[in-house]
Amino acid sequence: MEEKEIDIIEKINALLLLKKYSEIRDLLIEMNPVDIANLFSELPMNRLPVLFRLLPKELGADTFVEMEPETQEHLIKGFSDNELKEVLEEIYLDDTVDLLEEMPANVVKRILINSEPETRKQINEILKYPEDSAGSLMTTEYVSLRRDMTAYEALKRIRRTGIDKETIYTCYVTKSNRKLIGIVTARSLLLAEEDALIDDIMNDKPISVNTHTDKEDVADIIQKYDLIALPVVDDENRLVGIVTIDDAIDVIKEEATEDIEKMAGMLPSDKPYLRTGVFETWKARIPWLLFLMLSALFTQLIITHFEATLTLFSLSAFIPMITGTAGNSGSQSSVAVIRALSLGEIEFKNTFRILFKEVRVAFFCGLTLAVANMIKALIQGAIQGNFVFSTSLVVSITILITVIIAKIVGSLLPILAEKIGFDPAVMASPLITTVLDSVSLLVFATIAVLLLY
Amino acid sequence: MEEKEIDIIEKINALLLLKKYSEIRDLLIEMNPVDIANLFSELPMNRLPVLFRLLPKELGADTFVEMEPETQEHLIKGFSDNELKEVLEEIYLDDTVDLLEEMPANVVKRILINSEPETRKQINEILKYPEDSAGSLMTTEYVSLRRDMTAYEALKRIRRTGIDKETIYTCYVTKSNRKLIGIVTARSLLLAEEDALIDDIMNDKPISVNTHTDKEDVADIIQKYDLIALPVVDDENRLVGIVTIDDAIDVIKEEATEDIEKMAGMLPSDKPYLRTGVFETWKARIPWLLFLMLSALFTQLIITHFEATLTLFSLSAFIPMITGTAGNSGSQSSVAVIRALSLGEIEFKNTFRILFKEVRVAFFCGLTLAVANMIKALIQGAIQGNFVFSTSLVVSITILITVIIAKIVGSLLPILAEKIGFDPAVMASPLITTVLDSVSLLVFATIAVLLLY
Repeated sequence: MEEKEIDIIEKINALLLLKKYSEIRDLLIEMNPVDIANLFSELPMNRLPVLFRLLPKELGADTFVEMEPETQEHLIKGFSDNELKEVLEEIYLDDTVDLLEEMPANVVKRILINSEPETRKQINEILKYPEDSAGSLMTTEYVSLRRDMTAYEALKRIRRTGIDKETIYTCYVTKSNRKLIGIVTARSLLLAEEDALIDDIMNDKPISVNTHTDKEDVADIIQKYDLIALPVVDDENRLVGIVTIDDAIDVIKEEATEDIEKMAGMLPSDKPYLRTGVFETWKARIPWLLFLMLSALFTQLIITHFEATLTLFSLSAFIPMITGTAGNSGSQSSVAVIRALSLGEIEFKNTFRILFKEVRVAFFCGLTLAVANMIKALIQGAIQGNFVFSTSLVVSITILITVIIAKIVGSLLPILAEKIGFDPAVMASPLITTVLDSVSLLVFATIAVLLLY
Repeated sequence: MEEKEIDIIEKINALLLLKKYSEIRDLLIEMNPVDIANLFSELPMNRLPVLFRLLPKELGADTFVEMEPETQEHLIKGFSDNELKEVLEEIYLDDTVDLLEEMPANVVKRILINSEPETRKQINEILKYPEDSAGSLMTTEYVSLRRDMTAYEALKRIRRTGIDKETIYTCYVTKSNRKLIGIVTARSLLLAEEDALIDDIMNDKPISVNTHTDKEDVADIIQKYDLIALPVVDDENRLVGIVTIDDAIDVIKEEATEDIEKMAGMLPSDKPYLRTGVFETWKARIPWLLFLMLSALFTQLIITHFEATLTLFSLSAFIPMITGTAGNSGSQSSVAVIRALSLGEIEFKNTFRILFKEVRVAFFCGLTLAVANMIKALIQGAIQGNFVFSTSLVVSITILITVIIAKIVGSLLPILAEKIGFDPAVMASPLITTVLDSVSLLVFATIAVLLLY
């Protein structure tokens, strides 16, 4: 938290004690809604209704949508029906839908009762789309135009109806049956002659998605084509809503978080860290921990099988180093490939190019590590007076070979997973590490048996 | 690649053979620049100059900025000076700067020679800002307005000058000394009365950043406040440029990739996977591999020290399972905390809340795993006829304790790193895993000595 912020919090707390509400109001109306919402989260919950009522209607609504669900719930419970109606009238439809998704059933009911019948109908439309679809992400408030309008008429229409729309920068040209036939940006409307026909200035091959398109694809398309908003159509190509870029950014961040969570062997969660309960966190983490622990049965069997050799030549002490190096090498490759896949930098047809690159990188990494290990063994041996060349050679050769195998396995598994329709992010560190534990132990024991007897 | 795309590639290759250029042109001008650039990357490099010349000037320039640097370089080398000038005139300044950053010195020189003197001056201004700063990310092409204009005059000005500006949706109100005093959105201009004064409708507390602000902070601000563009000012609050939302999205994606790379023990790279050479990849991966391999000296010493005990009770076989479980548990916590830190969900003052949560989650995870391990040992023992209760108890107790330690270490290290100004992402899986290898082995050996003798 910045000092300035702490200053304001102290000042407002003091003004609250003195009941100098109009001075608080003067402070707040100078602030951005995002900052007011952050500020409110630092103030005592029971003072919020009083503070919220100080805000002018529009600023209040803009602040409301930026708040944490807990704070929103607390406020709504303190609202009169009229106050609730006022807030609901000001906020955009997609924000209302987001709100409903976070509130408990009794609050949802109160919100729906206090919404306009038309809004309620639209809300119910959006709520019926699957959670991760374009339909659930969109808003139904957009500017629609007709192809036979002029630029002047279109701008007049924007002036008349734009106030309630989330964006007026992209307008949608539809036929009377709501079929989407083109898009016009506010930019081209402003730069066109006043009597230019929409039909002539519109882009008649608009990029659109279906209500059932996955929200990750929606975000990718918005980013790929640098769009401010993307139209969402139903199966008959009728325009039903738009997804705006701010929602796309949220999806991009959420998806990166999900990938990161999966790569660390957790089930993804869409809730912030501190808002996820202990039981929920346990549920997200235990499946992989359990699976990976039980799969270690293989390493256990391998070590037991080679126990005599490992003990005879004092090789057990190297086990964590070898499995660790294999795991780290494999993780690097798998994570690099998973990220490149998710950014669309590589695809299945690049498999051989990827493999060829990884094998060469692995060879140089493996060689560097093998040499470093030999040097380390020499120094350690000189200090402790127990350098054994053959043991060090076995360890170095094992490192070289396992690094190469690790990088091949690490880069191949995610590509194959993607190809057969699995989520490549799951093929990250924990799984690869566990597979490589067994592989590297097998290599180690085999080389020891070959070279030392 | 989609089927439709393959169809078009085949069709264009066929038309190229038949030299039916006007038919190719008809195909291309129906397409989006992003798609044309993708298409060109799939066609033989030596046909690109011919194909590129088929595109109308504006579409050509829009396509050019979407291409891979290799393709751009190849095309520029084939351009006449006039063709190069034409492309440079059409593309936005920040795209020219991006281009310069990717091209070899001789191409950079040719681009600068063929730019307008005014553009050249602006390019040089931008190039002198540090690589990760707002200054290097911004464009200097924006719409500026005066406070005494009316909405009507402002719109007229946008109409006259907007064609060359990257965005016209946010306009900047400056004094004659270029000091930024406010911003006006095209939305408020359109919705205002024609004779409304800019002074009355502008936001006079615009959010801005300094030319030296880190680009990650720039992206965060754009996202936090849902902006389409963010003004960049110098130390005297003079407006020097704007950063647009499409650049912010690129930064958000890059930052997520960097975090992921660091978490997997790689030095971050800003180049796509397939464009990074073998030596570069080796250089990014070897430091951590080497450091982690050498740190395994500790595990080696621990195992050697307890070798008698481990051999006597056949405990070596459990080493990979125990270090693996500790590593996986610790990674989960560290990655969850690192991501929450980078999303701004938690900060240092939440440390106790985080620890309290992690300890409880760890206890339940550890208990689940300990019980599962006991059941597994019973089943395995029943099959092999060699169940030893005391050994299984040692392993189960070790798991419970190490999971708790792992989750404490995993969640604390990133928070402490952030507090002392280190990058928390570096405290992810590989480092935590290596630390936990030693810790878990020490716990294992200690419990074995305590319970088994």
